[in-house]
Amino acid sequence: MPLTRRHVAALAGIAALGVVATGATWQIAQGQQSPSSEPGGQGGDPAPRGKTGLLRPGTRVLFQGDSVTDARRDRKNSAANRRQALGEGYAWLVASDALVSRPDDGLEFLNRGISGNVTADLLDRWQEDTVALAPDVVSILVGINDYWNRHRVKGFVGSADTYHRELGAVVDRTRAALPDASIVICEPFVLRADPVTDQWLHEFADYQRAAADLAAVNEVAFVAFQSLLDEAAEVEPATTWLHDGIHPTADGAALLAGEWARVATAS
Amino acid sequence: MPLTRRHVAALAGIAALGVVATGATWQIAQGQQSPSSEPGGQGGDPAPRGKTGLLRPGTRVLFQGDSVTDARRDRKNSAANRRQALGEGYAWLVASDALVSRPDDGLEFLNRGISGNVTADLLDRWQEDTVALAPDVVSILVGINDYWNRHRVKGFVGSADTYHRELGAVVDRTRAALPDASIVICEPFVLRADPVTDQWLHEFADYQRAAADLAAVNEVAFVAFQSLLDEAAEVEPATTWLHDGIHPTADGAALLAGEWARVATAS
Repeated sequence: MPLTRRHVAALAGIAALGVVATGATWQIAQGQQSPSSEPGGQGGDPAPRGKTGLLRPGTRVLFQGDSVTDARRDRKNSAANRRQALGEGYAWLVASDALVSRPDDGLEFLNRGISGNVTADLLDRWQEDTVALAPDVVSILVGINDYWNRHRVKGFVGSADTYHRELGAVVDRTRAALPDASIVICEPFVLRADPVTDQWLHEFADYQRAAADLAAVNEVAFVAFQSLLDEAAEVEPATTWLHDGIHPTADGAALLAGEWARVATAS
Repeated sequence: MPLTRRHVAALAGIAALGVVATGATWQIAQGQQSPSSEPGGQGGDPAPRGKTGLLRPGTRVLFQGDSVTDARRDRKNSAANRRQALGEGYAWLVASDALVSRPDDGLEFLNRGISGNVTADLLDRWQEDTVALAPDVVSILVGINDYWNRHRVKGFVGSADTYHRELGAVVDRTRAALPDASIVICEPFVLRADPVTDQWLHEFADYQRAAADLAAVNEVAFVAFQSLLDEAAEVEPATTWLHDGIHPTADGAALLAGEWARVATAS
């Protein structure tokens, strides 16, 4: 897989840290291979079309995650490729662009993100909400609630280590049940805007490194959303992209969708 | 320039018509060369990066047109690359994606679209609003008011022939004043939704063929928005994309932006 510029930048940043998370039991070894898509069922064959990447004709893509993925979708509507079923976020924007520009390729997009989910919630519903759907590509964006709940849920126990272990279990379970599926790990993100403080940015970085580590160790595609949004915040204020530092605006969702598609297409 | 699938589809559709516009004095000759980007100042040199196409590092892009391009921009704000100055439409979405994903490439995006403009309005303000800005890429999306005014402006005189002549003059003037600039002609579009009737779709097709003809004759890039939106209307109802059959929703603008970027990058 040709690495994107962002892959390289993300890995370079991680490598520069040396030890990834102080006090954590996991780390990215120096010089370790960069994240790359798994070959899945296609073996070493080149993609049939030059630029489809993971989105080969006939591919079924499942977006999993929390409110950022959910994006007010109608949870009673489980249909593929419909706006009501996909919500108004990055998942729908990825889908609509692909469906409209490649109408004859039989692509299918599903969304099973649920607002408020932490990684343990994904594990609980992985069999029926992921494995049973037999996706070819499983995209996972989760982690902000794993951190946020430390602030807002009394007695919530969780750390970057917990997140790393549970997200790792999500990946392992996907691999075991769907050996031909490609996995895309999306980096969870925050920007400095009420209620996100500098402390959040600092502490949440451990969670982001956990996601990057799992992508690297498992050699799956990694969408480096945080560096994208950091660049975005140089162009316009943070709230242009994430209205509360966490949830994307329409502009933010368009940005995420473009990056997701770039990584998926290059993978 | 590698032609996109849509270029080919658009041209095939035009060629299939044989004579392009009944009663018009212009037409695309059978077997004529497809639209392609002009080499501009770069001669036959390959682009320095594989996928930049017209958006080479340091490129200044100017979006010109009517309300679809204007998209509620702040006309007192003439700055490059700012959301307020670029509006909330496809121009901003193209710009934001490019600026954020390629922050070090020195790209500049300007918007001078003005709501309600017909092609003659562009001609009137071409010197100060286009030539004086010295863009490297001039993107033009105009024509819906050239047609619409036939319905809503008493005494308005205009036809597809008038539009063809005036848009041709816009291209000629750009070539003369900015010989190194690349021109992108965007196909004006409509979908069947109040107030757009079947009669509109039928009559407006002559205007769309005029735009395609000028792109072909001048060998400049052509963004086939109508076929894109026709595909979109197969995925979700027309008003998901153009709330009144004319003006894009956020979803529609994202779609247009993706297509514009694809054509610009492939050109």
